[in-house]
Amino acid sequence: MKRINVVGMGPGAWDKMTIEAAKALEESDTIIGYTVYVDLLRDHLADKEFLTTPMTKEVDRCRMAFEEAEKGKNVSLVCSGDAGVYGMSGLMYQIGEDYPQVELNIIPGVTAALGGAAILGAPLIHDFCLISLSDLLTPIEKIQKRLEAAGEADFVVVLYNPSSRKRADYLQKACDILLRYRDPSTVCGIVENIGREGETKKVLTLRELRDTPVNMFTTVFIGNSQTKEIQNNMVTPRGYRDV
Amino acid sequence: MKRINVVGMGPGAWDKMTIEAAKALEESDTIIGYTVYVDLLRDHLADKEFLTTPMTKEVDRCRMAFEEAEKGKNVSLVCSGDAGVYGMSGLMYQIGEDYPQVELNIIPGVTAALGGAAILGAPLIHDFCLISLSDLLTPIEKIQKRLEAAGEADFVVVLYNPSSRKRADYLQKACDILLRYRDPSTVCGIVENIGREGETKKVLTLRELRDTPVNMFTTVFIGNSQTKEIQNNMVTPRGYRDV
Repeated sequence: MKRINVVGMGPGAWDKMTIEAAKALEESDTIIGYTVYVDLLRDHLADKEFLTTPMTKEVDRCRMAFEEAEKGKNVSLVCSGDAGVYGMSGLMYQIGEDYPQVELNIIPGVTAALGGAAILGAPLIHDFCLISLSDLLTPIEKIQKRLEAAGEADFVVVLYNPSSRKRADYLQKACDILLRYRDPSTVCGIVENIGREGETKKVLTLRELRDTPVNMFTTVFIGNSQTKEIQNNMVTPRGYRDV
Repeated sequence: MKRINVVGMGPGAWDKMTIEAAKALEESDTIIGYTVYVDLLRDHLADKEFLTTPMTKEVDRCRMAFEEAEKGKNVSLVCSGDAGVYGMSGLMYQIGEDYPQVELNIIPGVTAALGGAAILGAPLIHDFCLISLSDLLTPIEKIQKRLEAAGEADFVVVLYNPSSRKRADYLQKACDILLRYRDPSTVCGIVENIGREGETKKVLTLRELRDTPVNMFTTVFIGNSQTKEIQNNMVTPRGYRDV
């Protein structure tokens, strides 16, 4: 049986990958990924064949992995963060129906919610949800409904893809929905370039977040009604009978 | 400035830890944790001082870490999964207010949602939420409200702590709430002992899940309305304009 590793490389820095992920890449002949992420690996894996495709060519990238595996190569497909969180592992199973002789080995990694949380403090100690604000593949009404639900049920919320050129005001709209349920002073946090050059963090209120410019490298955290600021860190307590 | 590493060790196997986490443990004098998890590390870190406390003694464990750091030791506090997801990093910041001269270095890891997803296939490719069914620190009404919200807004749901001796029917009750919003044939999955001896997975329907016995080592995944079974894997597509 041929096998493809689908590897979550974590936030970007080599050390933030799991040992298992690093071993899989070191044992590969061919490493396939989006150009920007593959470039972060080259220095550590000088002797490998690297194949890249641009950001929007996910289906091509998956097919490329299966085609290379069929040639008998040991192939790893890499994603930033975790391949299973808004990542490529789903597409790989779907496209894999055309390649029944190839098995998938999914290697999990630290997704931006976890990497960002560690930088901000401890925002995810209680129930939380992840919502992507990208409406490229999801109707905007469904995204809004999820923000409503998250607001109403007092989930900590992590937003992926909070902005892009075409969606400049999406974070503002998301905050407006949450402000219907949550106090404007709710503790929030933003992190940029997690585990990479130019890493920044900021703890701020929901009201301030609403008018803060973000970009596609920002991960946004919105606290629940219990989340506190402790020495410039964002901390959600475990529950009602706490310390 | 003294510093404590708060380390997420991932699912349990050494290789499933990040390189950064392994380095932090290797450079530590003293490693503190819950007995069961610390025992998984001993073979790899023979020369370290290990301090353990039982499961319910989290506050003692945190204070122990600060006391050891104050003695000048290089201390790591370990948690299974990610220390920031229902983990100890929140308590460490809260208790840390009494120890302003000690800095915390949070090292993220692969939480059970990510580790379990990789075993089941690709259930978390779209918006999801994590809910703990433990009502030890959270009123049961709040947990139920979050299940309602997750059901209504079509989130993929990951359940932590789905059962214990005192809460034998909690998973059944959670499924009953979700069954109000989701078809009984909704694709679900359970994983036990992720990354450890005795690892098992099962893909099943929401109706079947309702009557499946689980325990404190089980992580439960409930698909959204789009989640499919592909060759016995649980796969959530990216969105409405898919492959």
